[in-house]
Amino acid sequence: MSLSFIPLVGLPRRSRRRCPRLHSVKASMPSVVKVGILGASGYTGAELLRLLAQHPRAEVSVLTADRSAGKEMGAVYPQFAFGAFGKSLPTLVRSEDVNWASAADLVFCCLPHATTQDIIASLPLSSGLRVVDLSADFRLRDLSSYERWYGGKHRAPVLQKEAVYGISELFRESIRDARLVANPGCYPTTAQLPLIPLLEKRLILPTDIIIDAKSGISGAGRSPTQGTLFCEVADGISAYGVASHRHMPEIEQGLTDAYGSHDPVRVSFTPHLMPMSRGILETIYVKTSSGVDADQMRKCLANRYADEPFVHVLQKGVAPPQTRHVRGSNNCVIQVMNDAISGRAIIISALDNVVKGASGQAIQNMNIMFGFPETMGLECQPTFP
Amino acid sequence: MSLSFIPLVGLPRRSRRRCPRLHSVKASMPSVVKVGILGASGYTGAELLRLLAQHPRAEVSVLTADRSAGKEMGAVYPQFAFGAFGKSLPTLVRSEDVNWASAADLVFCCLPHATTQDIIASLPLSSGLRVVDLSADFRLRDLSSYERWYGGKHRAPVLQKEAVYGISELFRESIRDARLVANPGCYPTTAQLPLIPLLEKRLILPTDIIIDAKSGISGAGRSPTQGTLFCEVADGISAYGVASHRHMPEIEQGLTDAYGSHDPVRVSFTPHLMPMSRGILETIYVKTSSGVDADQMRKCLANRYADEPFVHVLQKGVAPPQTRHVRGSNNCVIQVMNDAISGRAIIISALDNVVKGASGQAIQNMNIMFGFPETMGLECQPTFP
Amino acid sequence: MSLSFIPLVGLPRRSRRRCPRLHSVKASMPSVVKVGILGASGYTGAELLRLLAQHPRAEVSVLTADRSAGKEMGAVYPQFAFGAFGKSLPTLVRSEDVNWASAADLVFCCLPHATTQDIIASLPLSSGLRVVDLSADFRLRDLSSYERWYGGKHRAPVLQKEAVYGISELFRESIRDARLVANPGCYPTTAQLPLIPLLEKRLILPTDIIIDAKSGISGAGRSPTQGTLFCEVADGISAYGVASHRHMPEIEQGLTDAYGSHDPVRVSFTPHLMPMSRGILETIYVKTSSGVDADQMRKCLANRYADEPFVHVLQKGVAPPQTRHVRGSNNCVIQVMNDAISGRAIIISALDNVVKGASGQAIQNMNIMFGFPETMGLECQPTFP
Amino acid sequence: MSLSFIPLVGLPRRSRRRCPRLHSVKASMPSVVKVGILGASGYTGAELLRLLAQHPRAEVSVLTADRSAGKEMGAVYPQFAFGAFGKSLPTLVRSEDVNWASAADLVFCCLPHATTQDIIASLPLSSGLRVVDLSADFRLRDLSSYERWYGGKHRAPVLQKEAVYGISELFRESIRDARLVANPGCYPTTAQLPLIPLLEKRLILPTDIIIDAKSGISGAGRSPTQGTLFCEVADGISAYGVASHRHMPEIEQGLTDAYGSHDPVRVSFTPHLMPMSRGILETIYVKTSSGVDADQMRKCLANRYADEPFVHVLQKGVAPPQTRHVRGSNNCVIQVMNDAISGRAIIISALDNVVKGASGQAIQNMNIMFGFPETMGLECQPTFP
Repeated sequence: MSLSFIPLVGLPRRSRRRCPRLHSVKASMPSVVKVGILGASGYTGAELLRLLAQHPRAEVSVLTADRSAGKEMGAVYPQFAFGAFGKSLPTLVRSEDVNWASAADLVFCCLPHATTQDIIASLPLSSGLRVVDLSADFRLRDLSSYERWYGGKHRAPVLQKEAVYGISELFRESIRDARLVANPGCYPTTAQLPLIPLLEKRLILPTDIIIDAKSGISGAGRSPTQGTLFCEVADGISAYGVASHRHMPEIEQGLTDAYGSHDPVRVSFTPHLMPMSRGILETIYVKTSSGVDADQMRKCLANRYADEPFVHVLQKGVAPPQTRHVRGSNNCVIQVMNDAISGRAIIISALDNVVKGASGQAIQNMNIMFGFPETMGLECQPTFP
Repeated sequence: MSLSFIPLVGLPRRSRRRCPRLHSVKASMPSVVKVGILGASGYTGAELLRLLAQHPRAEVSVLTADRSAGKEMGAVYPQFAFGAFGKSLPTLVRSEDVNWASAADLVFCCLPHATTQDIIASLPLSSGLRVVDLSADFRLRDLSSYERWYGGKHRAPVLQKEAVYGISELFRESIRDARLVANPGCYPTTAQLPLIPLLEKRLILPTDIIIDAKSGISGAGRSPTQGTLFCEVADGISAYGVASHRHMPEIEQGLTDAYGSHDPVRVSFTPHLMPMSRGILETIYVKTSSGVDADQMRKCLANRYADEPFVHVLQKGVAPPQTRHVRGSNNCVIQVMNDAISGRAIIISALDNVVKGASGQAIQNMNIMFGFPETMGLECQPTFP
Repeated sequence: MSLSFIPLVGLPRRSRRRCPRLHSVKASMPSVVKVGILGASGYTGAELLRLLAQHPRAEVSVLTADRSAGKEMGAVYPQFAFGAFGKSLPTLVRSEDVNWASAADLVFCCLPHATTQDIIASLPLSSGLRVVDLSADFRLRDLSSYERWYGGKHRAPVLQKEAVYGISELFRESIRDARLVANPGCYPTTAQLPLIPLLEKRLILPTDIIIDAKSGISGAGRSPTQGTLFCEVADGISAYGVASHRHMPEIEQGLTDAYGSHDPVRVSFTPHLMPMSRGILETIYVKTSSGVDADQMRKCLANRYADEPFVHVLQKGVAPPQTRHVRGSNNCVIQVMNDAISGRAIIISALDNVVKGASGQAIQNMNIMFGFPETMGLECQPTFP
Repeated sequence: MSLSFIPLVGLPRRSRRRCPRLHSVKASMPSVVKVGILGASGYTGAELLRLLAQHPRAEVSVLTADRSAGKEMGAVYPQFAFGAFGKSLPTLVRSEDVNWASAADLVFCCLPHATTQDIIASLPLSSGLRVVDLSADFRLRDLSSYERWYGGKHRAPVLQKEAVYGISELFRESIRDARLVANPGCYPTTAQLPLIPLLEKRLILPTDIIIDAKSGISGAGRSPTQGTLFCEVADGISAYGVASHRHMPEIEQGLTDAYGSHDPVRVSFTPHLMPMSRGILETIYVKTSSGVDADQMRKCLANRYADEPFVHVLQKGVAPPQTRHVRGSNNCVIQVMNDAISGRAIIISALDNVVKGASGQAIQNMNIMFGFPETMGLECQPTFP
């Protein structure tokens, strides 16, 4: 399934007036995109490189990592210390030492939450540089919500207004022309891909949506903390951030939009840490609308994603998805089942938090932004065993 | 908290008429209990031995394992191939070769579900032999429910009627005098310990109780199956038995009793397989009764279990329990939190499925049955890291 | 030097007359190779598919799996139940139901050791079908050695004589024209890649070579056995097959050839099972020739593999390779260090047992056999984290 | 033979005059030992508590942790947040705030290497306080060796001279009367238990002893470092400290004493990090003395340890020990096999690095020092699965 240009043609929202930057972007559409990564020394940075290595039209031109500036990537991630691709990578530099106007066509921003606003605001977006931000800084449209959940005033409110929330399958049209894409969180992607179409079609009720989420440890990043040491997380599981995780408002924003009522949709969201490196599985408990059962929900999702290369709805009777069957791939796989209690259904949604939950979706968004086939660089099959 | 004899004295329910076998049992109360294990080659059998090694008043007199008859335990479980205790263990024999009337005072039955009824029916219970059955065969009081969930007619319905369901903390009085204790399932123990007191006190509603359960692999047993191979379960997670797991009716039976209404309490129960050997964590989503919040629920449970050595309710604000903090111990640890959606609460309950979820509770029940302090043989602290 | 090098030198076997198929093979070199997999339901079969999905000139035309015949691959490996590639795969069939002469240009044989000889002997090699055998059946040139280690007479001795041992980097020339390639074992590949050049150049002594090998569990295959259940291998390690593993004679055969003396080179080889799915790390303890130290050994290997895309020798001072840094890739990474005892050195060699140790090297050999670029389909970077 | 054996033999050091404290120690032998732990917030501190919970004659009277002073243990290790034992523990205090003369009879010192000397030197050993030091600070008799390997001058050389190296089974007599026991390293215990008797009896050669050691992650401690994060060590293995690990001189010191020649015994020692929490397995490759094979070696060790409750030599033909079969116990299990190369043998030795490799052996030494049965508090069986 390529990202065909057909829907782009003749749509009023792409008129010169509404999106004046669009045509200049198109005029400068490079045959090879020069890609920079801000904060390349984290897990999402490394994963971007793994995937970009196979992207025929992306060239990694800049890698920044303030504390590791001057080092080669192979010193930070040994898997890039050998092999033609690893050796071809630019040396890590400090962000402030880059002339962004000429260094890159697109920047993936992999910096920690709350540190990103100032840096992105300082980038020359007006010169055509485009940004996919993997942090949470531009995801919450409501600035007061941002302030409440992230503990500080938003420092780039104008940019926030422009930012496009980037679940590729759902917001493709807006992503295409965006200068700044807010790449969604891993938990929110896993939840919204099944829930948004179901709420749009009103097949499920907007109340008492319960999302029990299980994630691998890579989501916690590479900074040393006691809580993510091997001995602290191996051979055991735990809940964290109960009723207080920052991905909750992000999910609620998307579901409220989808349901389209004045009342915000609230969710019960409980993340858990699993003794595995990658993968998210969400078990979502919902109430169905009157007369609706799992079959109709499954059909709705199967139709919605029929032509999508990365979102797969399993057929009736097929065992629910396992994270290991999407590991390393950009897939999100979904199954829907009736609950034992009538009037209820269970949705199970699985993806790789580092790929479709972060770097893979970021590249998918880049492909949309630059008119490349959407699967470019993302064709690897899941790694199992 | 020892299992004091005080409640035993002078209670009418222990009158000769209602429980004639009781006095003969008491008369023959041995200072050391001779213990047999039927099906000692499985994980629950091995775990019973690990714990019994430290029980000063239990002596392992018989170990059966039909396919491994003639072998030493150390050949089946290498950890018993050395050390004084391991070397003291009797050789594995076939069940039919045991003279049960003289061989043991108590039998732990660790056979697979559905194979147990005939064997237990053939044991000389009338001669004073007592049984703790770790299989599911005697847990469901309703024979038609047994037939529906286990796929066959119950073959020992009279014994089923006599069997006492053995969550130690909740049914201690009945366990004390029982000839046959149906040791509860691991998932049902984890769920019922918090839910039964809350339903009894009507602090939560009996509707839409959602139990998202996560278990280590040992619960699947030691028989080789593709689905429990290391490569099939490592570094990934999955749901199974969605809306169709056999522990669901067992939980519903207990909750219905606790709530005490005519309408059965139904639960949504979804188990998941985790890449770890031991441990169960259940995240339970409930609706609170009007005016009730997590604090009241927590207090109710803290009061209920204040004197219990193995069930612990965490204080407000303490992070929810992790399975690794109960690993190897007989503890069940519970926390209660308000959900983000008002009128809802989240209960998190953790235990070691092989100990409190199986062999540990079986020994706790033995201690109750024989008047030993309830913690005897079960004093080991959790193993972490 | 190679398994088949000696007979190749100056022998008419490579002449036009003795090997007429060679040119016909070339003449009929397809732009797309039709690939069959015998025994596709095992881990090496699944891994071949993962890699072939990205091979632009291979088309999977036949998949056999006798016990799963009639099923789709997605029913056997859920990661192929969705996605364009998975859905494009042929249905599993019984081997005997395939018309091999027309069905495929190349067959990867992924059947268990000792079952392969009859099946390969029955294939129409004379019609141009070529075979890469991933079993051990054609690896040992000495038939009596085969009989001793595999417990039965070799049933295809003529084919055995023709088979080419397929470490791609070392025996490329012979592989190119082979009808039957014996794809090397995972442990032997890891050991021979560093040891063969060092023995050829006589930088190390041929005595007391000690290979301490550590492997992930996938090497044991997907058949259910107690010893590879999650609970039996997680959170612990063990040695097995001490001084008696079948890969020992395979390694010794290669090293003896390389050293080129009349006395066979013997090795001390001890494999260990690690709680991980993929990866082999071998720590090899050797005595150096007089005056030789790790620097010279490292240089020798760096030179030998300077132009190889998949074998990488780390620079002096770089930390030794970790299996997780080659996971999912076809790389073998090697480091050499002086031992604390003078006159000794330590070689550490790491690869992914399912890729360079099996399916990846099989595809690399296919690429050699069909004149494709050797990296085709094998360009994926390691997956870390 | 022991670190301190030679000076003990016939030397006045054990006489009443040189060791007046000895009898006063005996005179004041308490029926319950008051135990302090310096540095209780690390893994060895937590493990001491797990074991001491079951020790009937030890009472935990002081716990220090400078950075966590003022907290309860349950806040640092949640497994001690509930249960009678956990709640009975003293609050963490700063070391300098303790009046050691009255606070404890014995101190376990669990501080990091190189920080211990000053603190132990400041303790009132002359008042009868006795110390088991789990750090490496007092293990190396040769002060210049200490300086070379630990990077600084030893700051308590007189105490160092008095310290007794504490492998319980080998140096029991010296430990009994020691004021300061240097508790051995985990790797050195695993290696020396089999090697010392074999070298004493000259069954193996003192040259080219190769120790390939594999350890769980807990040995690296609880301080957050990138290298011990879950994602950095899960599902992969690696060697580290090749030919440069600090446990090498400790092993060599013991082996040199045992062999009793003027030439130091040198070993090749390579540690590896395994994706598991606990356990050490060492595969030791040795040359046998002329005419000696594995049977004689095994018999020698079986005789040496026949009466030992914690060191077990497996019988001929029994599979080599696995770390998971000693997990959580104080056992060291050993097997000896002939190598495939004649004149060589392979020894496999396994223990739990946190127990027999650290805290368990420390308690065993305490038992020796205070005249308790050596198994007291250490009777728990291995935890498997």
